[in-house]
Amino acid sequence: MVRINRNFLKLPGSYLFSEIDRRVKGYAQAHPQAQLIGLGIGDVTRPLPSAVTEAMHRAVEEMATPEGFHGYGPEQGYDFLRRAIARWDYQRRGIDITPEEIFLSDGAKSDSGNMGELFGVDNVVAVCDPVYPVYVDTNAMAGRAGEFDGHTGRWGALRYMPCVADNGFVPDIPWGEEAGLIYLCFPNNPTGAVASREQLGQWVEYANSSGAVILFDAAYEAFISQEDVPHSIFEVAGARTCAIEFRSFSKTAGFTGTRCAYTVIPKTLVRDGVALHALWSRRQSTKFNGVPYVVQRGAQAVYTPEGQRQVRETIAYYQRNAQVIRKGLEQAGLTVYGGVNAPYIWVKTPDGMGSWVFFDLLLERAGVVTTPGAGFGPSGEGYIRVTAFGSGADTCRAVERIAQAVGTL
Amino acid sequence: MVRINRNFLKLPGSYLFSEIDRRVKGYAQAHPQAQLIGLGIGDVTRPLPSAVTEAMHRAVEEMATPEGFHGYGPEQGYDFLRRAIARWDYQRRGIDITPEEIFLSDGAKSDSGNMGELFGVDNVVAVCDPVYPVYVDTNAMAGRAGEFDGHTGRWGALRYMPCVADNGFVPDIPWGEEAGLIYLCFPNNPTGAVASREQLGQWVEYANSSGAVILFDAAYEAFISQEDVPHSIFEVAGARTCAIEFRSFSKTAGFTGTRCAYTVIPKTLVRDGVALHALWSRRQSTKFNGVPYVVQRGAQAVYTPEGQRQVRETIAYYQRNAQVIRKGLEQAGLTVYGGVNAPYIWVKTPDGMGSWVFFDLLLERAGVVTTPGAGFGPSGEGYIRVTAFGSGADTCRAVERIAQAVGTL
Repeated sequence: MVRINRNFLKLPGSYLFSEIDRRVKGYAQAHPQAQLIGLGIGDVTRPLPSAVTEAMHRAVEEMATPEGFHGYGPEQGYDFLRRAIARWDYQRRGIDITPEEIFLSDGAKSDSGNMGELFGVDNVVAVCDPVYPVYVDTNAMAGRAGEFDGHTGRWGALRYMPCVADNGFVPDIPWGEEAGLIYLCFPNNPTGAVASREQLGQWVEYANSSGAVILFDAAYEAFISQEDVPHSIFEVAGARTCAIEFRSFSKTAGFTGTRCAYTVIPKTLVRDGVALHALWSRRQSTKFNGVPYVVQRGAQAVYTPEGQRQVRETIAYYQRNAQVIRKGLEQAGLTVYGGVNAPYIWVKTPDGMGSWVFFDLLLERAGVVTTPGAGFGPSGEGYIRVTAFGSGADTCRAVERIAQAVGTL
Repeated sequence: MVRINRNFLKLPGSYLFSEIDRRVKGYAQAHPQAQLIGLGIGDVTRPLPSAVTEAMHRAVEEMATPEGFHGYGPEQGYDFLRRAIARWDYQRRGIDITPEEIFLSDGAKSDSGNMGELFGVDNVVAVCDPVYPVYVDTNAMAGRAGEFDGHTGRWGALRYMPCVADNGFVPDIPWGEEAGLIYLCFPNNPTGAVASREQLGQWVEYANSSGAVILFDAAYEAFISQEDVPHSIFEVAGARTCAIEFRSFSKTAGFTGTRCAYTVIPKTLVRDGVALHALWSRRQSTKFNGVPYVVQRGAQAVYTPEGQRQVRETIAYYQRNAQVIRKGLEQAGLTVYGGVNAPYIWVKTPDGMGSWVFFDLLLERAGVVTTPGAGFGPSGEGYIRVTAFGSGADTCRAVERIAQAVGTL
């Protein structure tokens, strides 16, 4: 008799976005006239840049000919793309990362989920609270999270690091405690907060001195608008010996439905006497067969001057939405965070209202779908997340409707 | 201090194809004039069917417009593709599989590797010998294989099922033994053997009676040329309560560099009181974000009349190569297996020669790259694998050269 992985059974029933989906569908069915605007799930809406689609067309054409056909590619990605990434995203900023340290993949979600395989089950995992649920759920599946307490909304064996208004939504260093794997995400999902170079420097110091590994998710890096905010943890001295970085084309270039991301593991990152670069290389070549050739050619086009111009335009479009949301909700008397270096605005619920209550209120009175902060962890209670990825017109309309709904409270 | 997953360290150093690569590169450097022909790694060479590339062009065009843009798709794949698969690959053959039981992915390698996550570490895993290395290595990484014995080439905790000429390369049922997870692959990689409906029926009976799960890899199904050979394990009564099937567009439609595959988990497959369909659904929605929209549109085109015609043409091309190899090597006095319902020909080495010795001999005297059978497991010793995926001209030339080289022995 086969035995299943019983850690899966510990996962609480409904995933955040499924629950939102259920409530939205229920409301829409009961109110077929309602014109709902979705500012909930973090999916982009602008088309792919033409530099990207033109490159994809050319690659599809190649695949149609015997001479241009590409079969299995290197699991780690084609050199043309790894070189472009190393040059544009790192070396151009003075960061010492080589093409060989870059692993292409189908998504930062896959990589941040699969990365746990390199580590023993007996590690203490530290996550921010609120947190992107994938870090938590994948560790729970692997047996690293202990038991889930439905009452507190916490896993017994995880170490939660509260990110609240008091600490600027950047967690405090757990000096003196044992944390083997530390998940950090800046610009942050869901709070939109960023960490300064000094704050990241403290994390790097902690990880190097304690022998921990920082799993740094920089999927929203392209939204940084302020000069002094670090784009990569590798801007910080010492990070090459303690950090792994996840990056994605999803939000940078509209690749959520095109699927391309990458993970950087410096060759100098050694733990337990083993280079993690070699372990991940083994993991990927055994369980992964690379990103589609056509998609890699599309991603490469992001690094052309034309591609860069177009990508910046799209990001600017979303950044304007973020400003509209920030301003509009502030004028409506709400307290807002984020949205300056991130596509996410973290909105305090009025009068200490619960996240899900405010979510339902906005759904019903404003016809706007948001994400309840409590869905990202206990410290997200009392907040909702609003995203800047809608159309400009929808975003303006949504903000007006929210202001109106809040005004009647 | 973080602790790594020490199971990774148990993996023997060089992966089969890396070792081949090393030898081939070494030979090519020493003999720059040599015109090597590769019939080793199982990668296709014919271009994508025009029905597929035209569909991909259209999809890329959609992605370039706000109206046609597709962001995150369903993790399990778009309905249009799941429906096409259910209808064409199953229901058309009278097999009861619904679209909801089909999970799209980026590769059968990923799925067969990741599937292990659903099961406890304390399961006995049975694999064919010789075997596609991914089944073994992924179980070793998870800690299910025990220790590797470099002398025997076997993992202590795996149950190897010899597939040899005497049993027609179809393993015997391990009655009376505990095997929780059973990996079967038919048409087989590397031997090219197929299992009859009766043989699969016995496996299904065994799995249902013992509570095991069969992980059935049917990636080479499109190469079946004989009427009575089953294309799916779900053609066998009872399989819906014991089997998971892996399928791929890689060899069917030339998608090795385009990346699309699917896994079928019947909703009626329950173990330990849990539906495996629900577990995999949870796994995929947590760690995977779906196959690129453009690629799914390409895969859908495989199921159009035009796509089917073109795919059949390409398969026929490779099947002719397989015939050329079979006939040519038989005429050269070699004993050959497979190649009738599979793109692989399993060739007995002459005079009991070792696999790697014969591999080196063919590399050096014929300039042909094959795969040594020993690389697939101890029972592969004394064989080499030759693939039918080369160009027609290369295949003819390679067969002539092999015949010549063997003639001088």
